Amino acid sequence: MGQQIFKGNIIFTPSPEELKICAKSHIVVEDGTVEGIYERLPEKYGHAPVKDYGERLILPGFVDLHVHAAQFYQCGLGLDRELIDWLSDCTFPAESRFSDPVYAREAYSLFADELIRQGTARACIFATIHKESTGLLFEILQEKGIGAFVGKVNMDRNCPGFLREETEVSIEETEELIIQYGGHPLVKPILTPRFAPSCSGKLLAAIGELAEKYNLPVQSHLAENRREVEWVRELFPSRPTYSDVYFDSGLFGQTPTLMAHGIYLTDRELGLIKDNGVVLVHCPESNINLASGIMPVRKWLGRGIRAGLGSDVGAGHTLAMSKAVVRAIQLSKLMKFFDPWAKPLTIAEAFYMATKGGGSFFGKVGSFEKGYSFDAIVVEDDPRIAGRLSLEEQFQRFLYTGDDRNIIARFVRGRQVG
Amino acid sequence: MGQQIFKGNIIFTPSPEELKICAKSHIVVEDGTVEGIYERLPEKYGHAPVKDYGERLILPGFVDLHVHAAQFYQCGLGLDRELIDWLSDCTFPAESRFSDPVYAREAYSLFADELIRQGTARACIFATIHKESTGLLFEILQEKGIGAFVGKVNMDRNCPGFLREETEVSIEETEELIIQYGGHPLVKPILTPRFAPSCSGKLLAAIGELAEKYNLPVQSHLAENRREVEWVRELFPSRPTYSDVYFDSGLFGQTPTLMAHGIYLTDRELGLIKDNGVVLVHCPESNINLASGIMPVRKWLGRGIRAGLGSDVGAGHTLAMSKAVVRAIQLSKLMKFFDPWAKPLTIAEAFYMATKGGGSFFGKVGSFEKGYSFDAIVVEDDPRIAGRLSLEEQFQRFLYTGDDRNIIARFVRGRQVG
Repeated sequence: MGQQIFKGNIIFTPSPEELKICAKSHIVVEDGTVEGIYERLPEKYGHAPVKDYGERLILPGFVDLHVHAAQFYQCGLGLDRELIDWLSDCTFPAESRFSDPVYAREAYSLFADELIRQGTARACIFATIHKESTGLLFEILQEKGIGAFVGKVNMDRNCPGFLREETEVSIEETEELIIQYGGHPLVKPILTPRFAPSCSGKLLAAIGELAEKYNLPVQSHLAENRREVEWVRELFPSRPTYSDVYFDSGLFGQTPTLMAHGIYLTDRELGLIKDNGVVLVHCPESNINLASGIMPVRKWLGRGIRAGLGSDVGAGHTLAMSKAVVRAIQLSKLMKFFDPWAKPLTIAEAFYMATKGGGSFFGKVGSFEKGYSFDAIVVEDDPRIAGRLSLEEQFQRFLYTGDDRNIIARFVRGRQVG
Repeated sequence: MGQQIFKGNIIFTPSPEELKICAKSHIVVEDGTVEGIYERLPEKYGHAPVKDYGERLILPGFVDLHVHAAQFYQCGLGLDRELIDWLSDCTFPAESRFSDPVYAREAYSLFADELIRQGTARACIFATIHKESTGLLFEILQEKGIGAFVGKVNMDRNCPGFLREETEVSIEETEELIIQYGGHPLVKPILTPRFAPSCSGKLLAAIGELAEKYNLPVQSHLAENRREVEWVRELFPSRPTYSDVYFDSGLFGQTPTLMAHGIYLTDRELGLIKDNGVVLVHCPESNINLASGIMPVRKWLGRGIRAGLGSDVGAGHTLAMSKAVVRAIQLSKLMKFFDPWAKPLTIAEAFYMATKGGGSFFGKVGSFEKGYSFDAIVVEDDPRIAGRLSLEEQFQRFLYTGDDRNIIARFVRGRQVG
């Protein structure tokens, strides 16, 4: 791939506190990795070709830490339900369609195209229980050039017969996919027990063993809804908390772990999460669509917990992570009605979560510091409005009012994908 | 204009409880007014031309009951502030630009185009204090064909000098605009004291007299933010409540009245609102962007109060009323965390607020019953996804995931405007 040089108004968040704005600057990329940002190009690059994006903004591509590819067709539907009913009435029937690879190929292609269109460069994705269509999802994403962790879902109880796996088969098929798809540089397997209620203790333990054997990351759901938390307590009466169920199975930080939601957490769990480096995924749109609650994200961050953002499609109704940034800020503003001392998230903090914060799960991803993967989107706006605004305002305006039409180019590790 | 016949999948809400779906039906329109809906066209229309929209949805155009045209450029900016600071730091300086009619003409044209693009057929609009540019707004809206109430803002205190009016001049100029623009069938004047804190008692009383003299409607803001409510109490110590300030000036239901927000209301005020037929405007996006709070809309509706929806651009960051519908539903789901008995708004209820509910302020607007103005949008979706869905699901999907690209035609009183 060699050397590439891009020019534009470069904006990123090296830390949650800093919105770094490099006006009319050059970003030099070597083999897909950022080498440096220069207002004036050093002499050694003097004759290199520059892709000049003019007045446009160059931002890190988004990182979506929690999304269900098989629920893409469901966006916006059935949202008059809360979690457990929504799963059984809407989601399980929809996921059962993925037993058909022809259906899956079309659905996953549309999903991948939309993910890229919306400016997501990396995603942590739940497929379904179906081995063959999960394999197709790996292949489609590889072909499109996006970065992802992809998990075949495991579940062997508390779900309809048409989605219930035999425990052994679930493990075998998971391992087969790991072996088949483990070697790709950008699209990689992740262990994906759906959530504690739909997995037997035996299944969870076996998945934990796979995580250790192949040194693979883990993703699941945690404490999204009060009824769910109560249910886990009933199903695992010997475990002190929901988090302990995962921890005792080797699925809670023993390898890199993502837990979606994490709204209703005890002090013990917050300790386990922090001590084991578990990353929580805040999914604000989903949390209000399913009336789950508001994650006290500022409080969790204040306790030293790592957190990123997820679209959680289909309970969230859009793959646009710019909207997850806005919704996270909006919900953090409502926290003051529960806790008068709660301070809202700033735009920099929420954008950090959607880029470098979540990107850390992939390595050096989500920033434009030296050594980071050049995952980027190029953003333009109506010059009749943007022309009157500062660069920081243009950035805010894109997050709040922009959509995929404002994204004119998308890069993952230096390669243009859209 | 004569007779028009449209065919498609017609969906509307004759009441908040009923989502009426007329699959593959005809809607007959006479001189811009709905004559009837027929699955099979009666014989008398047998040879009339039919505009066939095929599988597409035909929905009532949206009604935006609260929007600031001069804040359109501000969408998404400065939202790390609450109401009073946002006004003084961002909004007042932005509105001052409208002293320049050249600037105003461009800004208002962009605003009107976007309003139409997003499927709004009718809007209740705040301009600024500036007479000349407010006049331009009347003219631009007339030309574009949208229906609107337009108000020159009045304020004579508690605002920067560059926006402060002399009381007498404020009244004179308001009356001049009423006389100049009072005769148009679709774009009409409305009295628009900004809100109690920025109007002297003398100004409020004089505006009330104009309302009576010309029998004109009134729009303002009410109880959006706790600090604002406290401020009104300090400014008008002799009035028992914020609502009484307006009521005592003849600005609270003596003529048709819209009050935006209405979050923090006392029992006395709820009584005044109901007894005087004041219409409250719920602006959910604005209320979370400025951390104002959540309007207990279901509770207010249960007390017999009329309410519609508003985009409240620029504190709300989008003119798309489909998004106001979704945000109203989402916030109503969060009410359960404040009041365990609160029931969320259904899609039909929220859509009703954004069409027939708000439309009642304009007369027979916002529905497709006989005698209603044919204000409509035609909606299409990706057939690869929509083709699998019921009509009700397609409707839900448009509200949650659609945008202006899904709207392929827009009508106001039978005339195509976009």
